[in-house]
Amino acid sequence: MPLTRREVLSGLAAAAAVSLTPDLLVAQSTSALRIDAARLQQSLEGLSVYGRRQDGTFADGVSRIAYSDADVAGRKYAMELMRSAALDPHIDAAGNITALRQGSDPSLKPILFGSHIDSVPKGGNFDGDLGSMSAIEVMHTLNQHNVQTRHPLRMYIWQNEEGGLTGSQAASGSSLDLQRQFNGMRTEDGIRKIGGDPAHIAEARIAPGSIHCYLELHIEQGGTLEKAGIPIGVVEGIVSIDDYDVEIRGFANHAGTTPMPERRNALLAAAQLIEAVQTIVTSEPGRQVGTVGSLTVSPNARNVVPGLVELTVELRDLSAEKIARLGQQIQKRAQTIAEETKTDIVMKHVDHDPPAMASPEIQAQIEAAASALGLKTMRLPSGAGHDAQMMARVGPMGMIFVPSIGGISHSPRELTRWSDCANGANVLLQTVLRMDGV
Amino acid sequence: MPLTRREVLSGLAAAAAVSLTPDLLVAQSTSALRIDAARLQQSLEGLSVYGRRQDGTFADGVSRIAYSDADVAGRKYAMELMRSAALDPHIDAAGNITALRQGSDPSLKPILFGSHIDSVPKGGNFDGDLGSMSAIEVMHTLNQHNVQTRHPLRMYIWQNEEGGLTGSQAASGSSLDLQRQFNGMRTEDGIRKIGGDPAHIAEARIAPGSIHCYLELHIEQGGTLEKAGIPIGVVEGIVSIDDYDVEIRGFANHAGTTPMPERRNALLAAAQLIEAVQTIVTSEPGRQVGTVGSLTVSPNARNVVPGLVELTVELRDLSAEKIARLGQQIQKRAQTIAEETKTDIVMKHVDHDPPAMASPEIQAQIEAAASALGLKTMRLPSGAGHDAQMMARVGPMGMIFVPSIGGISHSPRELTRWSDCANGANVLLQTVLRMDGV
Repeated sequence: MPLTRREVLSGLAAAAAVSLTPDLLVAQSTSALRIDAARLQQSLEGLSVYGRRQDGTFADGVSRIAYSDADVAGRKYAMELMRSAALDPHIDAAGNITALRQGSDPSLKPILFGSHIDSVPKGGNFDGDLGSMSAIEVMHTLNQHNVQTRHPLRMYIWQNEEGGLTGSQAASGSSLDLQRQFNGMRTEDGIRKIGGDPAHIAEARIAPGSIHCYLELHIEQGGTLEKAGIPIGVVEGIVSIDDYDVEIRGFANHAGTTPMPERRNALLAAAQLIEAVQTIVTSEPGRQVGTVGSLTVSPNARNVVPGLVELTVELRDLSAEKIARLGQQIQKRAQTIAEETKTDIVMKHVDHDPPAMASPEIQAQIEAAASALGLKTMRLPSGAGHDAQMMARVGPMGMIFVPSIGGISHSPRELTRWSDCANGANVLLQTVLRMDGV
Repeated sequence: MPLTRREVLSGLAAAAAVSLTPDLLVAQSTSALRIDAARLQQSLEGLSVYGRRQDGTFADGVSRIAYSDADVAGRKYAMELMRSAALDPHIDAAGNITALRQGSDPSLKPILFGSHIDSVPKGGNFDGDLGSMSAIEVMHTLNQHNVQTRHPLRMYIWQNEEGGLTGSQAASGSSLDLQRQFNGMRTEDGIRKIGGDPAHIAEARIAPGSIHCYLELHIEQGGTLEKAGIPIGVVEGIVSIDDYDVEIRGFANHAGTTPMPERRNALLAAAQLIEAVQTIVTSEPGRQVGTVGSLTVSPNARNVVPGLVELTVELRDLSAEKIARLGQQIQKRAQTIAEETKTDIVMKHVDHDPPAMASPEIQAQIEAAASALGLKTMRLPSGAGHDAQMMARVGPMGMIFVPSIGGISHSPRELTRWSDCANGANVLLQTVLRMDGV
């Protein structure tokens, strides 16, 4: 059984041989707790082995796609680390890895924290991994120092974040499409492969209002913190996303025999639309982004005027109203382009993620924790989706960001300094402790 | 043995019971010769069976790709038609189908004419087919009426026009890359499959200066004739083509976390280049065309800023100097775009086809032949490549165009009216006879 905070306190106080009032001592003792930076680095480096290229080199980064053999091996490794940290890991029905650490007051709601360890193909070693390994490290540190929290603590390693926040979505109570294909298999088969039980997936649900809070440490994946020279980002919220599918129909014809004025060139229309997205999105101040990330051309031959182009438009901002308005402006411009290029443009709104706002109170606690550690902070939105947005549906949510060098992520070149990793994990630890005091 | 022209003449003169001087009679009699329009239509319809969809419908047009089983079957059909026309078809070492019709003067060089019957995937029934079936029809008509020409006549059905003028290129004396893959096999295996002899391909060569002329009837593939309401196009030449491969390197990054000003978006640069090609090519008068027909994006995901775009630029005009100049302007603009978008753009000149000019004398003969048939003509360049451009390397060349409805080709919707097919074949016949008199 771990000691209570008061017991730890007396031990530390004895060691320090200082005389302090008991309340101040509690605060001082736990605020002096630090994670083991070397052990955290070791955990991250150990995890990086799973999903490398067969020759063992890191040339292609890590491909630990959910439900792959590498994913299964990485999860096994994570659970071994959890056991080394005196935790008892468990796989819930949705396939998430979780472990509970009891608090001193059974009437209090649990503090949740965690992240994911699945990756995109040819991704890096920090996206998700840092938050997951830091969650273990926080538990390990508390266990090592026999710190008893008031609230129960529960950590999660969510399954298949990169493929659509699958595990956290199930936990938040949203129904999953278990037949959806991912990584060459149905989601239900994937969940079975990683040890979940798709028939009883509802058992993985976390009831709304049943948690004290959810915290997640993650790499920024953008370059804002690094550029500003600030080690800790305090996330204001996770952006709203609007997804559009655009189909541009012109007419495929011989490039040699079709005079320029006679063409109905779908790719020329697409080019104008790509520029319109850029112009419209950057036409007003703010951090909104707009991206044409995918585009395919038919018939896609050197000597044929393109007859069909399919492309995607994605808009993101903390304000759902703003991206809805930008979407309408792009729609309108698309129709003008269609008329001018004698093409037909159909722009369908295919998906909308609402924004997930971080709790202002948790933001303040993260700032206080960082400040006590001597770390500067800045507030910023998360442009990327995270499991935290699903947890925001069941309780107050907060996220801690650390700098990504060059803003690079989803790439073998994804990198966060070890010192920044340790800073992030310490801020997570201290925020957990601060939230425990609330 | 066919009759001489003079013998035909006396027969016709007797039938007409008119008294004319022999020379005038020769001219009148042969100028009254007409192909059999119904038989030509039947030949074209008969050929259209080979390469249809397995269900026998024409929903996907015709896929008679060179060296396919459909190509072999179509060639067999064409050779049967040639035999019905009292010709003795032969497959040369390069795989071209050819047949000779003797002339009365062995010292004269042969008049060549023909086209191809291979198609693009999901193509139409007129591109190549019309010129090939009309060549047979011209021979058939001459044989039927026992017309003896002075020059030997030789018809050709060239192999693999669509895959790079392969058969006519070999005949023109250019060396083929026999290892080149086409339609899933090496060219040498394809040639073997259709009855050629790749080991002795030089035997298929036509020595420069050894022919009287080469004539080819073809559908326009563009919409100029139909728009002008003119049934016969007189080709001025086959355009010069410059091909460029363009590689645009930006940096692939997360679309949610990479602020707009930080992006190195390869697709945005590509969009600007596509518009630049359009603007530069249409900035001066003329019939030049410029096309970005093929474009691929990496990694091509909705939520990733495109890091790499590969695209093609193709420029065509009768003037090689003009497209060289336009290419330089595009190159220059590409470098400005690269700077503005923080990308690297490499534009490589990968291919150059020189223009192949039609003989002015043959152009005049085609015009005279059409005029005598009561058919209006207009001169125009051929924006598409044709076997005729290879034959222009060995002797004087001329091409006859007939209208393509809507300018559509390389499509199941490719269509030329039967009356226009017959007009074209009659102009071919009459041009052969006129060239025979020269």
